[in-house]
Amino acid sequence: GARELVEPLHPADVADLFELVSPEQRRALAAAVADLLDGDVFSEMNDWVREELIDALEPHEVADIAGQLETDDAVALIEDLEEDEQRAVLRALDPDDRAAIEEALTFPEESAGRLMQRDLIAVPEHWNVGQVIDYLRATEGLTTDFWEVFVVDPQHHPVGTIQLSWILRTPRHIPMSDLMKREQTLIPVDMDQEEVALRFQKYALISAAVVDHAGRLVGMITVDDIVHIIQQEAGEDVLLLSGAGEGDINQPLRDSYQARVRWLIANLFTALVASAVIAAFGAAIEQMVALAILMPIVASIGGNAGTQTMAVAVRALATNQLTQSNTIRTIKREIAVALLNGITIAVLVGVGAALVFSNPQLGAVIAAAMLINILIAGLAGVLVPVLLERLDQDPAVASSVFVTMTTDSMGFLAFLGLAVVTGLVR
Amino acid sequence: GARELVEPLHPADVADLFELVSPEQRRALAAAVADLLDGDVFSEMNDWVREELIDALEPHEVADIAGQLETDDAVALIEDLEEDEQRAVLRALDPDDRAAIEEALTFPEESAGRLMQRDLIAVPEHWNVGQVIDYLRATEGLTTDFWEVFVVDPQHHPVGTIQLSWILRTPRHIPMSDLMKREQTLIPVDMDQEEVALRFQKYALISAAVVDHAGRLVGMITVDDIVHIIQQEAGEDVLLLSGAGEGDINQPLRDSYQARVRWLIANLFTALVASAVIAAFGAAIEQMVALAILMPIVASIGGNAGTQTMAVAVRALATNQLTQSNTIRTIKREIAVALLNGITIAVLVGVGAALVFSNPQLGAVIAAAMLINILIAGLAGVLVPVLLERLDQDPAVASSVFVTMTTDSMGFLAFLGLAVVTGLVR
Ligand SMILES: [Mg+2]
Ligand SMILES: [Mg+2]
Ligand SMILES: [Mg+2]
Ligand SMILES: [Mg+2]
Ligand SMILES: [Mg+2]
Ligand SMILES: [Mg+2]
Ligand SMILES: [Mg+2]
Ligand SMILES: [Mg+2]
Ligand SMILES: [Mg+2]
Ligand SMILES: [Mg+2]
Ligand SMILES: [Mg+2]
Ligand SMILES: [Mg+2]
Ligand SMILES: [Mg+2]
Repeated sequence: GARELVEPLHPADVADLFELVSPEQRRALAAAVADLLDGDVFSEMNDWVREELIDALEPHEVADIAGQLETDDAVALIEDLEEDEQRAVLRALDPDDRAAIEEALTFPEESAGRLMQRDLIAVPEHWNVGQVIDYLRATEGLTTDFWEVFVVDPQHHPVGTIQLSWILRTPRHIPMSDLMKREQTLIPVDMDQEEVALRFQKYALISAAVVDHAGRLVGMITVDDIVHIIQQEAGEDVLLLSGAGEGDINQPLRDSYQARVRWLIANLFTALVASAVIAAFGAAIEQMVALAILMPIVASIGGNAGTQTMAVAVRALATNQLTQSNTIRTIKREIAVALLNGITIAVLVGVGAALVFSNPQLGAVIAAAMLINILIAGLAGVLVPVLLERLDQDPAVASSVFVTMTTDSMGFLAFLGLAVVTGLVR
Repeated sequence: GARELVEPLHPADVADLFELVSPEQRRALAAAVADLLDGDVFSEMNDWVREELIDALEPHEVADIAGQLETDDAVALIEDLEEDEQRAVLRALDPDDRAAIEEALTFPEESAGRLMQRDLIAVPEHWNVGQVIDYLRATEGLTTDFWEVFVVDPQHHPVGTIQLSWILRTPRHIPMSDLMKREQTLIPVDMDQEEVALRFQKYALISAAVVDHAGRLVGMITVDDIVHIIQQEAGEDVLLLSGAGEGDINQPLRDSYQARVRWLIANLFTALVASAVIAAFGAAIEQMVALAILMPIVASIGGNAGTQTMAVAVRALATNQLTQSNTIRTIKREIAVALLNGITIAVLVGVGAALVFSNPQLGAVIAAAMLINILIAGLAGVLVPVLLERLDQDPAVASSVFVTMTTDSMGFLAFLGLAVVTGLVR
């Protein structure tokens, strides 16, 4: 049966299995291998699938699972529950686990305080290598998953850090103060997870000390959790930019519908702006249907040029590559690229239109419109995300609506407006 | 001067500084702090900025820098050099370093063989904790950066792995065979870095053993390098989907231009398909200019719906969430979402158009066209990436061209075609 197949698997593979099957199969599988569905499996699972399975459990069952986990993983398990369910689970937990989780829940979502685990190894500066090893060997109940030892002063402020490999390569009599690295990256307990992840990446950290407002060591974040955050934060920009919300193939249908239709409706309003521009030039189009035929070219290429620049700007902002100090330089750079792109496309489209419609003036008008629109697209593609970031908004969420609206309506305005102004149509 | 400011900085911060300033300032800064520009700074640097600085150096200078680095970082430094330059650098290296780097270069780009470092700790199964610690303390020249010890058999096949924390928490007389974990994730030397990164993420690895075709331990990959790969691979999907190539604000202008204009020209051809559809209905548009006014709504909403689905599918493929076994289920799911979205938008646009133009038949036509186009968009949005993946193409690279072409031309065809077929226009 299913049990024999699932039993030898790694928890992460069991989690994958639950993700791959259909919701009906999922319930049957959960019933068949209930005892194999432990905390480790749940913490590897896709948020949506986990939520679905957790919803079917009683609070005391959820509490049993959470109790097997480190605080950070337990918090991830219960932070998205309904408030009353969450309270019921917390009541069913051991007082110790409950206190640790409740404390973690006081920190904002996606902050270091929720990511950190409280189990870590901290030793005083005056201990030597031998004392540290003896302490690690003799003390019951210490964590077995740690990658560095933190050195603290009597007030529990971190003063240095030591990789385990250095301890293993050093004679017993050497004191921590001689071995430790004094410069270390300290993570404030309320730092956003995205910023935490960038620090880990930048300084190649395996784990890092988390400090409270008084600078005392209160927890440790490990890189295995950061790997998930980087994947999630970078991946979510793809989805946000394309208006798919938290898009995930395991998201409940209704959530997907709500997230996406909201975006399509927002887009409907921006398309109305473009339609209004066209409506204002109705007479011109009736007079020369070639204008209607060429319109999608203006809109489509302009929109694409804007999206290119916007994607580059959003990623540069997300990775802290685009900051105050190089904003002006980046804007100039994007305008330069837009100018080169604009000239190339303008020549191609202009010559093509002039030949196809045997109308050089029409070619000149669409060439000018393409150049103008690609320049506007380049400018909007970098300015919109930068402004949103300055206003403390996530540039990935709202940029495309504004950029597309700009390129659509400005493209039609430039094209149809030039057609009228130059006397191509009356 | 600049020296005093730069000296106390972490190599990663020095690298950031070089990235933030303009190319002219960069050269001046490099001259001012030449001795601080060591291997660690170069390996933290953005590819484009590094290339620019490396280009200004003599081969023997590059060799000096590469010589300070672990093999993996040295390889990253020189793998993108012109072939003759690379040869000159290799000639200037120590024979040992040279052999290690040349061997790494025999593996394909972006494979485990290029990512791995050869410095690692491997011990026989019969050693006990005390022997391992004594060996680590007494042996000169061992690496100091390692997070686990690999246990190997006499033929150097990995048979188990031990986290350093377990060694530190265990009495001296316990043998490795009792302490080691026998199940470990082995990375084949020619595995693609994206797959390696997914393994690290899935199994929460800090380091992993790399094995050659005979299953012998030949190297180790550490998670700090994987963090960069995950950031890069997830980030590149944003850029590829939007046609910005390797888009980076530090990319040379000419490279950006070439990458982006190629995409815009490809897009021009897809826009021509849409134009051809409109041209076929020229008479209909001349007769009822409202059709031209409503056209951008059909194209824009259809394009957006396609992009949403495509982004979800591309990310699900990239993270191994969408596989053979759940493709059918995912397609059904996306059609269901498209149906809900389509009905909502069709009602909104249909009623709106009927009222604004006082023409219920026009409302019915655009409503039907919107529903059809959003369904097609949903289908194309998931089928195109899935098919590209099956054909061993990167779905992020080519999906949007096909999806946009489909939604644009099918949208116009449905709208204008229905207008004619239903007798709205002759
Ligand atoms: Mg998984
Ligand atoms: Mg964990
Ligand atoms: Mg969560
Ligand atoms: Mg965030
Ligand atoms: Mg953890
Ligand atoms: Mg987030
Ligand atoms: Mg973000
Ligand atoms: Mg950097
Ligand atoms: Mg390194
Ligand atoms: Mg490279
Ligand atoms: Mg790749
Ligand atoms: Mg490395
Ligand atoms: Mg990829």
